[in-house]
Amino acid sequence: MTDQDSMAKINQFRDERHWRQFHNEKDLAISISLEASELLELFQWKTSAEAKQKPERLKEELADVLIYAYMLADNLDLDIDEIIAAKLAKNAKKYPVATSHDLKETKHHSFD
Amino acid sequence: MTDQDSMAKINQFRDERHWRQFHNEKDLAISISLEASELLELFQWKTSAEAKQKPERLKEELADVLIYAYMLADNLDLDIDEIIAAKLAKNAKKYPVATSHDLKETKHHSFD
Amino acid sequence: MTDQDSMAKINQFRDERHWRQFHNEKDLAISISLEASELLELFQWKTSAEAKQKPERLKEELADVLIYAYMLADNLDLDIDEIIAAKLAKNAKKYPVATSHDLKETKHHSFD
Amino acid sequence: MTDQDSMAKINQFRDERHWRQFHNEKDLAISISLEASELLELFQWKTSAEAKQKPERLKEELADVLIYAYMLADNLDLDIDEIIAAKLAKNAKKYPVATSHDLKETKHHSFD
Repeated sequence: MTDQDSMAKINQFRDERHWRQFHNEKDLAISISLEASELLELFQWKTSAEAKQKPERLKEELADVLIYAYMLADNLDLDIDEIIAAKLAKNAKKYPVATSHDLKETKHHSFD
Repeated sequence: MTDQDSMAKINQFRDERHWRQFHNEKDLAISISLEASELLELFQWKTSAEAKQKPERLKEELADVLIYAYMLADNLDLDIDEIIAAKLAKNAKKYPVATSHDLKETKHHSFD
Repeated sequence: MTDQDSMAKINQFRDERHWRQFHNEKDLAISISLEASELLELFQWKTSAEAKQKPERLKEELADVLIYAYMLADNLDLDIDEIIAAKLAKNAKKYPVATSHDLKETKHHSFD
Repeated sequence: MTDQDSMAKINQFRDERHWRQFHNEKDLAISISLEASELLELFQWKTSAEAKQKPERLKEELADVLIYAYMLADNLDLDIDEIIAAKLAKNAKKYPVATSHDLKETKHHSFD
Protein backbone atom coordinates (compact mmCIF):
# COMPACT_ATOMS: atom_id res chain seq x y z
CA MET A 1 0.00 0.00 0.00
CA THR A 2 1.40 3.35 -0.96
CA ASP A 3 -1.30 5.47 0.65
CA GLN A 4 -1.96 5.98 4.36
CA ASP A 5 -3.04 2.62 5.65
CA SER A 6 -6.46 1.64 6.94
CA MET A 7 -5.58 1.60 10.62
CA ALA A 8 -4.19 5.14 10.44
CA LYS A 9 -7.31 6.36 8.65
CA ILE A 10 -9.61 4.73 11.20
CA ASN A 11 -7.70 6.22 14.12
CA GLN A 12 -7.69 9.63 12.49
CA PHE A 13 -11.47 9.33 12.06
CA ARG A 14 -12.14 8.68 15.71
CA ASP A 15 -9.46 11.03 17.04
CA GLU A 16 -10.76 14.00 15.02
CA ARG A 17 -14.12 13.43 16.70
CA HIS A 18 -12.65 12.81 20.17
CA TRP A 19 -14.47 9.47 20.26
CA ARG A 20 -11.75 7.32 21.75
CA GLN A 21 -13.04 8.26 25.22
CA PHE A 22 -16.23 6.27 24.49
CA HIS A 23 -14.46 3.33 22.89
CA ASN A 24 -14.02 0.97 25.81
CA GLU A 25 -13.24 -2.55 24.68
CA LYS A 26 -16.50 -4.12 25.88
CA ASP A 27 -18.60 -1.74 23.80
CA LEU A 28 -16.29 -2.19 20.83
CA ALA A 29 -16.82 -5.95 21.06
CA ILE A 30 -20.58 -5.30 21.21
CA SER A 31 -20.24 -3.06 18.16
CA ILE A 32 -18.41 -5.71 16.15
CA SER A 33 -21.20 -8.15 16.96
CA LEU A 34 -23.92 -5.64 16.01
CA GLU A 35 -22.26 -4.83 12.69
CA ALA A 36 -21.83 -8.56 11.99
CA SER A 37 -25.59 -8.86 12.46
CA GLU A 38 -26.31 -5.98 10.09
CA LEU A 39 -24.18 -7.81 7.54
CA LEU A 40 -25.96 -11.11 8.24
CA GLU A 41 -29.34 -9.40 7.91
CA LEU A 42 -28.61 -8.92 4.20
CA PHE A 43 -28.76 -12.74 3.92
CA GLN A 44 -31.94 -13.26 6.00
CA TRP A 45 -34.54 -15.31 4.04
CA LYS A 46 -32.18 -15.31 1.04
CA THR A 47 -29.66 -17.49 -0.75
CA SER A 48 -26.11 -16.25 -1.17
CA ALA A 49 -26.88 -15.52 -4.83
CA GLU A 50 -29.92 -13.40 -3.94
CA ALA A 51 -28.01 -11.47 -1.28
CA LYS A 52 -25.18 -10.69 -3.68
CA GLN A 53 -27.60 -8.63 -5.74
CA LYS A 54 -27.09 -5.84 -3.19
CA PRO A 55 -23.30 -5.43 -3.41
CA GLU A 56 -23.31 -1.85 -2.10
CA ARG A 57 -24.89 -2.78 1.23
CA LEU A 58 -22.65 -5.84 1.58
CA LYS A 59 -19.62 -3.67 1.03
CA GLU A 60 -20.69 -1.15 3.65
CA GLU A 61 -21.68 -3.60 6.36
CA LEU A 62 -18.55 -5.68 5.89
CA ALA A 63 -16.52 -2.45 6.11
CA ASP A 64 -18.22 -1.58 9.42
CA VAL A 65 -17.28 -4.98 10.87
CA LEU A 66 -13.69 -4.37 9.81
CA ILE A 67 -13.58 -0.79 11.11
CA TYR A 68 -14.69 -1.82 14.60
CA ALA A 69 -12.40 -4.88 14.56
CA TYR A 70 -9.47 -2.62 13.66
CA MET A 71 -10.43 -0.18 16.45
CA LEU A 72 -10.49 -2.98 19.02
CA ALA A 73 -7.14 -4.28 17.74
CA ASP A 74 -5.69 -0.79 18.12
CA ASN A 75 -7.13 -0.41 21.64
CA LEU A 76 -5.48 -3.71 22.56
CA ASP A 77 -2.16 -2.78 20.87
CA LEU A 78 -2.47 -5.69 18.48
CA ASP A 79 -1.07 -5.87 14.97
CA ILE A 80 -3.73 -7.10 12.52
CA ASP A 81 -1.33 -9.06 10.33
CA GLU A 82 0.42 -10.64 13.28
CA ILE A 83 -2.72 -11.92 14.99
CA ILE A 84 -4.09 -13.28 11.72
CA ALA A 85 -0.81 -15.11 11.03
CA ALA A 86 -0.68 -16.51 14.56
CA LYS A 87 -4.29 -17.75 14.42
CA LEU A 88 -3.80 -19.33 10.98
CA ALA A 89 -0.80 -21.19 12.37
CA LYS A 90 -2.93 -22.47 15.26
CA ASN A 91 -5.84 -23.42 12.98
CA ALA A 92 -3.38 -25.25 10.71
CA LYS A 93 -2.45 -27.52 13.61
CA LYS A 94 -6.11 -28.27 14.30
CA TYR A 95 -6.78 -28.97 10.61
CA PRO A 96 -3.63 -30.42 9.00
CA VAL A 97 -3.67 -30.17 5.22
CA ALA A 98 -3.11 -33.89 4.74
CA THR A 99 -6.23 -34.92 6.63
CA SER A 100 -8.55 -32.01 5.93
CA HIS A 101 -9.59 -32.69 2.36
CA ASP A 102 -12.35 -35.10 3.11
CA LEU A 103 -15.85 -33.67 3.04
CA LYS A 104 -17.11 -35.48 6.11
CA GLU A 105 -14.17 -34.33 8.19
CA THR A 106 -13.98 -30.76 7.08
CA LYS A 107 -17.37 -29.55 6.04
CA HIS A 108 -18.24 -28.52 9.55
CA HIS A 109 -14.85 -27.08 10.46
CA SER A 110 -14.87 -24.46 13.16
CA PHE A 111 -12.04 -22.36 14.49
CA ASP A 112 -11.94 -22.40 18.29
CA MET B 1 4.41 -5.22 4.70
CA THR B 2 7.37 -7.05 3.25
CA ASP B 3 6.06 -10.54 3.88
CA GLN B 4 3.18 -12.26 2.12
CA ASP B 5 0.10 -10.33 3.13
CA SER B 6 -2.80 -11.51 5.28
CA MET B 7 -5.28 -12.04 2.47
CA ALA B 8 -2.84 -14.23 0.57
CA LYS B 9 -2.14 -16.30 3.68
CA ILE B 10 -5.83 -16.75 4.41
CA ASN B 11 -6.56 -17.83 0.84
CA GLN B 12 -3.64 -20.23 0.89
CA PHE B 13 -4.99 -21.71 4.11
CA ARG B 14 -8.40 -22.48 2.68
CA ASP B 15 -7.17 -23.48 -0.76
CA GLU B 16 -4.71 -26.03 0.62
CA ARG B 17 -7.66 -27.64 2.40
CA HIS B 18 -10.03 -27.35 -0.60
CA TRP B 19 -12.47 -25.49 1.64
CA ARG B 20 -13.56 -22.80 -0.75
CA GLN B 21 -16.31 -25.12 -2.00
CA PHE B 22 -18.02 -24.84 1.41
CA HIS B 23 -17.51 -21.10 1.74
CA ASN B 24 -20.72 -19.70 0.34
CA GLU B 25 -21.27 -16.10 1.34
CA LYS B 26 -24.29 -16.72 3.58
CA ASP B 27 -22.39 -19.17 5.76
CA LEU B 28 -19.36 -16.87 5.82
CA ALA B 29 -21.62 -14.06 7.12
CA ILE B 30 -22.95 -16.49 9.74
CA SER B 31 -19.35 -17.38 10.65
CA ILE B 32 -18.37 -13.73 11.11
CA SER B 33 -21.33 -13.30 13.45
CA LEU B 34 -20.48 -16.46 15.41
CA GLU B 35 -16.85 -15.43 15.84
CA ALA B 36 -17.95 -11.94 16.92
CA SER B 37 -20.00 -13.66 19.62
CA GLU B 38 -17.07 -15.76 20.78
CA LEU B 39 -15.13 -12.51 21.11
CA LEU B 40 -18.01 -10.85 22.96
CA GLU B 41 -18.30 -13.84 25.29
CA LEU B 42 -14.91 -12.87 26.76
CA PHE B 43 -16.62 -9.70 28.05
CA GLN B 44 -19.79 -11.40 29.44
CA TRP B 45 -20.34 -10.47 33.12
CA LYS B 46 -17.08 -8.49 33.04
CA THR B 47 -15.75 -4.97 32.73
CA SER B 48 -13.35 -4.13 29.91
CA ALA B 49 -10.50 -4.14 32.42
CA GLU B 50 -11.38 -7.63 33.67
CA ALA B 51 -11.70 -9.00 30.15
CA LYS B 52 -8.31 -7.63 29.15
CA GLN B 53 -6.71 -9.97 31.65
CA LYS B 54 -7.09 -12.73 29.03
CA PRO B 55 -5.18 -11.13 26.14
CA GLU B 56 -4.42 -14.45 24.43
CA ARG B 57 -8.08 -15.36 23.98
CA LEU B 58 -8.96 -11.81 22.86
CA LYS B 59 -6.22 -11.96 20.25
CA GLU B 60 -7.44 -15.29 18.89
CA GLU B 61 -11.13 -14.47 18.74
CA LEU B 62 -10.51 -11.08 17.16
CA ALA B 63 -8.27 -12.81 14.59
CA ASP B 64 -11.08 -15.26 13.76
CA VAL B 65 -13.49 -12.38 13.10
CA LEU B 66 -10.90 -10.82 10.79
CA ILE B 67 -10.10 -14.09 9.00
CA TYR B 68 -13.75 -14.72 8.11
CA ALA B 69 -14.27 -11.05 7.19
CA TYR B 70 -11.29 -11.23 4.83
CA MET B 71 -12.62 -14.49 3.32
CA LEU B 72 -15.99 -12.88 2.62
CA ALA B 73 -14.27 -9.82 1.12
CA ASP B 74 -12.28 -12.11 -1.14
CA ASN B 75 -15.38 -14.06 -2.17
CA LEU B 76 -17.03 -10.77 -3.09
CA ASP B 77 -13.91 -9.46 -4.91
CA LEU B 78 -13.64 -6.56 -2.51
CA ASP B 79 -10.45 -4.79 -1.51
CA ILE B 80 -10.26 -4.42 2.29
CA ASP B 81 -8.54 -1.02 2.24
CA GLU B 82 -10.88 0.36 -0.38
CA ILE B 83 -14.12 -0.59 1.38
CA ILE B 84 -12.81 0.76 4.69
CA ALA B 85 -11.84 4.06 3.05
CA ALA B 86 -15.21 4.34 1.29
CA LYS B 87 -17.17 3.64 4.48
CA LEU B 88 -15.09 6.10 6.52
CA ALA B 89 -15.86 8.75 3.90
CA LYS B 90 -19.58 7.99 4.21
CA ASN B 91 -19.47 7.97 8.03
CA ALA B 92 -17.63 11.30 7.94
CA LYS B 93 -20.58 12.87 6.16
CA LYS B 94 -22.99 11.52 8.78
CA TYR B 95 -20.77 12.75 11.61
CA PRO B 96 -18.94 15.92 10.51
CA VAL B 97 -15.92 16.70 12.66
CA ALA B 98 -17.14 20.19 13.50
CA THR B 99 -20.37 19.01 15.10
CA SER B 100 -19.35 15.65 16.50
CA HIS B 101 -17.36 16.64 19.57
CA ASP B 102 -20.22 17.09 21.93
CA LEU B 103 -20.94 14.20 24.27
CA LYS B 104 -24.72 14.29 23.93
CA GLU B 105 -24.53 14.23 20.17
CA THR B 106 -21.85 11.66 19.72
CA LYS B 107 -21.87 9.23 22.59
CA HIS B 108 -24.44 7.04 20.92
CA HIS B 109 -23.03 7.26 17.41
CA SER B 110 -23.83 4.37 15.15
CA PHE B 111 -22.65 3.66 11.64
CA ASP B 112 -25.54 2.72 9.38
CA MET C 1 -50.21 -25.29 32.93
CA THR C 2 -50.82 -27.04 36.21
CA ASP C 3 -47.21 -27.08 37.33
CA GLN C 4 -45.12 -24.15 38.50
CA ASP C 5 -44.60 -22.03 35.41
CA SER C 6 -41.37 -21.40 33.55
CA MET C 7 -40.75 -17.89 34.86
CA ALA C 8 -41.08 -19.06 38.46
CA LYS C 9 -38.69 -21.94 37.84
CA ILE C 10 -36.13 -19.67 36.19
CA ASN C 11 -36.28 -17.18 39.04
CA GLN C 12 -35.98 -19.93 41.60
CA PHE C 13 -32.92 -21.20 39.76
CA ARG C 14 -31.09 -17.90 39.91
CA ASP C 15 -32.29 -16.93 43.39
CA GLU C 16 -31.12 -20.21 44.94
CA ARG C 17 -27.66 -19.41 43.56
CA HIS C 18 -27.79 -15.71 44.55
CA TRP C 19 -27.07 -14.83 40.93
CA ARG C 20 -29.46 -11.95 40.51
CA GLN C 21 -26.73 -9.60 41.76
CA PHE C 22 -24.73 -10.32 38.57
CA HIS C 23 -27.71 -10.11 36.23
CA ASN C 24 -27.62 -6.50 35.12
CA GLU C 25 -29.69 -5.92 32.01
CA LYS C 26 -26.78 -5.12 29.70
CA ASP C 27 -25.08 -8.44 30.41
CA LEU C 28 -28.39 -10.28 30.11
CA ALA C 29 -28.85 -8.74 26.65
CA ILE C 30 -25.30 -9.87 25.81
CA SER C 31 -26.17 -13.35 27.09
CA ILE C 32 -29.28 -13.60 24.92
CA SER C 33 -27.15 -12.68 21.91
CA LEU C 34 -24.45 -15.23 22.81
CA GLU C 35 -26.98 -18.02 23.27
CA ALA C 36 -28.64 -17.08 19.97
CA SER C 37 -25.22 -17.55 18.35
CA GLU C 38 -24.71 -20.94 19.96
CA LEU C 39 -28.07 -21.92 18.50
CA LEU C 40 -27.12 -20.50 15.09
CA GLU C 41 -23.80 -22.36 15.21
CA LEU C 42 -25.75 -25.61 14.90
CA PHE C 43 -26.77 -24.42 11.40
CA GLN C 44 -23.30 -23.23 10.28
CA TRP C 45 -22.30 -24.85 6.93
CA LYS C 46 -25.55 -26.86 7.04
CA THR C 47 -29.03 -26.92 5.60
CA SER C 48 -32.01 -26.85 7.96
CA ALA C 49 -32.54 -30.55 7.30
CA GLU C 50 -28.95 -31.40 8.24
CA ALA C 51 -29.09 -29.31 11.41
CA LYS C 52 -32.30 -30.98 12.56
CA GLN C 53 -30.38 -34.22 12.86
CA LYS C 54 -29.11 -32.92 16.21
CA PRO C 55 -32.42 -32.26 17.99
CA GLU C 56 -30.94 -32.50 21.49
CA ARG C 57 -28.49 -29.63 20.94
CA LEU C 58 -31.18 -27.53 19.22
CA LYS C 59 -33.49 -28.04 22.17
CA GLU C 60 -30.85 -27.00 24.67
CA GLU C 61 -29.59 -23.93 22.85
CA LEU C 62 -33.09 -22.70 22.12
CA ALA C 63 -33.94 -23.20 25.80
CA ASP C 64 -30.93 -21.08 26.81
CA VAL C 65 -32.10 -18.24 24.57
CA LEU C 66 -35.53 -18.44 26.21
CA ILE C 67 -34.15 -18.66 29.77
CA TYR C 68 -32.10 -15.48 29.36
CA ALA C 69 -34.96 -13.73 27.56
CA TYR C 70 -37.30 -14.59 30.45
CA MET C 71 -34.71 -13.35 32.97
CA LEU C 72 -34.42 -10.01 31.18
CA ALA C 73 -38.22 -9.74 30.99
CA ASP C 74 -38.39 -10.37 34.72
CA ASN C 75 -35.68 -7.81 35.47
CA LEU C 76 -37.66 -5.27 33.45
CA ASP C 77 -40.99 -6.22 35.08
CA LEU C 78 -42.42 -7.29 31.75
CA ASP C 79 -45.06 -9.95 31.20
CA ILE C 80 -44.00 -12.33 28.41
CA ASP C 81 -47.49 -12.86 27.01
CA GLU C 82 -48.31 -9.16 27.10
CA ILE C 83 -45.23 -8.00 25.24
CA ILE C 84 -45.66 -10.73 22.61
CA ALA C 85 -49.30 -9.75 22.08
CA ALA C 86 -48.42 -6.05 21.86
CA LYS C 87 -45.64 -6.67 19.32
CA LEU C 88 -47.81 -8.96 17.20
CA ALA C 89 -50.42 -6.20 17.09
CA LYS C 90 -47.77 -3.72 15.92
CA ASN C 91 -46.34 -6.14 13.33
CA ALA C 92 -49.87 -6.77 12.06
CA LYS C 93 -50.19 -3.08 11.20
CA LYS C 94 -46.90 -3.15 9.32
CA TYR C 95 -47.91 -6.31 7.44
CA PRO C 96 -51.70 -6.33 6.93
CA VAL C 97 -53.07 -9.77 6.10
CA ALA C 98 -54.73 -8.60 2.92
CA THR C 99 -51.50 -7.37 1.33
CA SER C 100 -48.95 -9.74 2.80
CA HIS C 101 -49.57 -12.90 0.82
CA ASP C 102 -47.48 -12.05 -2.15
CA LEU C 103 -44.03 -13.57 -2.28
CA LYS C 104 -42.24 -10.45 -3.51
CA GLU C 105 -43.75 -8.33 -0.77
CA THR C 106 -43.40 -10.68 2.15
CA LYS C 107 -40.46 -12.95 1.59
CA HIS C 108 -38.07 -10.47 3.12
CA HIS C 109 -40.33 -9.35 5.94
CA SER C 110 -38.58 -7.98 8.98
CA PHE C 111 -40.02 -6.88 12.28
CA ASP C 112 -38.64 -3.47 13.30
CA MET D 1 -53.63 -17.88 31.14
CA THR D 2 -57.29 -17.65 30.26
CA ASP D 3 -56.83 -16.05 26.87
CA GLN D 4 -55.47 -17.66 23.75
CA ASP D 5 -51.86 -18.35 24.51
CA SER D 6 -48.81 -16.75 22.92
CA MET D 7 -47.85 -19.68 20.74
CA ALA D 8 -51.32 -19.86 19.22
CA LYS D 9 -51.29 -16.12 18.52
CA ILE D 10 -47.87 -16.31 16.89
CA ASN D 11 -48.88 -19.20 14.69
CA GLN D 12 -52.10 -17.46 13.72
CA PHE D 13 -50.05 -14.41 12.77
CA ARG D 14 -47.81 -16.30 10.39
CA ASP D 15 -50.48 -18.61 9.04
CA GLU D 16 -52.82 -15.73 8.11
CA ARG D 17 -49.97 -14.33 6.04
CA HIS D 18 -48.95 -17.72 4.56
CA TRP D 19 -45.44 -17.10 5.87
CA ARG D 20 -44.67 -20.56 7.18
CA GLN D 21 -43.35 -21.49 3.70
CA PHE D 22 -40.44 -19.04 4.23
CA HIS D 23 -39.77 -20.06 7.81
CA ASN D 24 -37.09 -22.71 7.41
CA GLU D 25 -35.27 -23.38 10.64
CA LYS D 26 -31.91 -21.98 9.53
CA ASP D 27 -33.40 -18.58 8.71
CA LEU D 28 -35.42 -18.62 11.93
CA ALA D 29 -32.19 -19.18 13.86
CA ILE D 30 -30.64 -16.28 11.93
CA SER D 31 -33.70 -14.16 12.79
CA ILE D 32 -33.42 -14.90 16.51
CA SER D 33 -29.78 -13.81 16.37
CA LEU D 34 -30.62 -10.62 14.45
CA GLU D 35 -33.39 -9.67 16.89
CA ALA D 36 -31.05 -10.37 19.82
CA SER D 37 -28.66 -7.87 18.24
CA GLU D 38 -31.37 -5.24 17.84
CA LEU D 39 -32.08 -5.69 21.54
CA LEU D 40 -28.38 -5.49 22.40
CA GLU D 41 -28.02 -2.35 20.29
CA LEU D 42 -30.18 -0.51 22.84
CA PHE D 43 -27.32 -1.07 25.32
CA GLN D 44 -24.46 -0.05 22.98
CA TRP D 45 -22.29 2.71 24.57
CA LYS D 46 -24.67 2.73 27.57
CA THR D 47 -25.01 1.44 31.10
CA SER D 48 -28.00 -0.72 32.01
CA ALA D 49 -29.53 2.26 33.78
CA GLU D 50 -29.22 4.48 30.71
CA ALA D 51 -30.68 1.82 28.43
CA LYS D 52 -33.69 1.32 30.68
CA GLN D 53 -34.73 4.86 29.92
CA LYS D 54 -36.15 3.52 26.63
CA PRO D 55 -38.54 0.86 27.98
CA GLU D 56 -40.75 0.83 24.89
CA ARG D 57 -37.94 -0.19 22.53
CA LEU D 58 -36.66 -2.79 25.03
CA LYS D 59 -40.12 -4.28 25.25
CA GLU D 60 -40.46 -4.52 21.48
CA GLU D 61 -37.04 -5.96 20.73
CA LEU D 62 -37.30 -8.50 23.53
CA ALA D 63 -40.73 -9.49 22.18
CA ASP D 64 -39.24 -10.03 18.70
CA VAL D 65 -36.58 -12.37 20.14
CA LEU D 66 -39.35 -14.32 21.88
CA ILE D 67 -41.62 -14.43 18.82
CA TYR D 68 -38.92 -15.94 16.61
CA ALA D 69 -37.83 -18.32 19.39
CA TYR D 70 -41.42 -19.53 19.74
CA MET D 71 -41.70 -19.96 15.96
CA LEU D 72 -38.56 -22.10 15.87
CA ALA D 73 -39.84 -24.15 18.84
CA ASP D 74 -43.09 -24.72 16.98
CA ASN D 75 -41.28 -25.70 13.77
CA LEU D 76 -39.30 -28.24 15.78
CA ASP D 77 -42.37 -29.52 17.66
CA LEU D 78 -40.91 -28.44 20.97
CA ASP D 79 -42.86 -27.40 24.05
CA ILE D 80 -41.47 -24.15 25.48
CA ASP D 81 -42.08 -25.05 29.12
CA GLU D 82 -40.66 -28.54 28.71
CA ILE D 83 -37.40 -27.48 27.09
CA ILE D 84 -36.89 -24.73 29.67
CA ALA D 85 -37.47 -27.18 32.53
CA ALA D 86 -35.13 -29.75 30.98
CA LYS D 87 -32.35 -27.19 30.47
CA LEU D 88 -32.72 -25.79 33.99
CA ALA D 89 -32.34 -29.32 35.33
CA LYS D 90 -29.16 -29.76 33.30
CA ASN D 91 -27.77 -26.36 34.35
CA ALA D 92 -28.54 -27.23 37.97
CA LYS D 93 -26.20 -30.21 37.72
CA LYS D 94 -23.44 -28.03 36.30
CA TYR D 95 -23.97 -25.41 39.02
CA PRO D 96 -25.13 -27.13 42.23
CA VAL D 97 -26.77 -24.71 44.67
CA ALA D 98 -24.42 -25.66 47.50
CA THR D 99 -21.27 -24.64 45.62
CA SER D 100 -22.51 -21.83 43.42
CA HIS D 101 -22.82 -18.98 45.89
CA ASP D 102 -19.24 -17.84 45.79
CA LEU D 103 -18.50 -14.85 43.61
CA LYS D 104 -15.32 -16.24 42.10
CA GLU D 105 -16.99 -19.48 41.12
CA THR D 106 -20.23 -18.12 39.80
CA LYS D 107 -19.71 -14.65 38.45
CA HIS D 108 -18.67 -15.96 35.08
CA HIS D 109 -21.21 -18.75 34.87
CA SER D 110 -22.17 -19.83 31.39
CA PHE D 111 -24.75 -22.34 30.29
CA ASP D 112 -23.30 -24.76 27.73
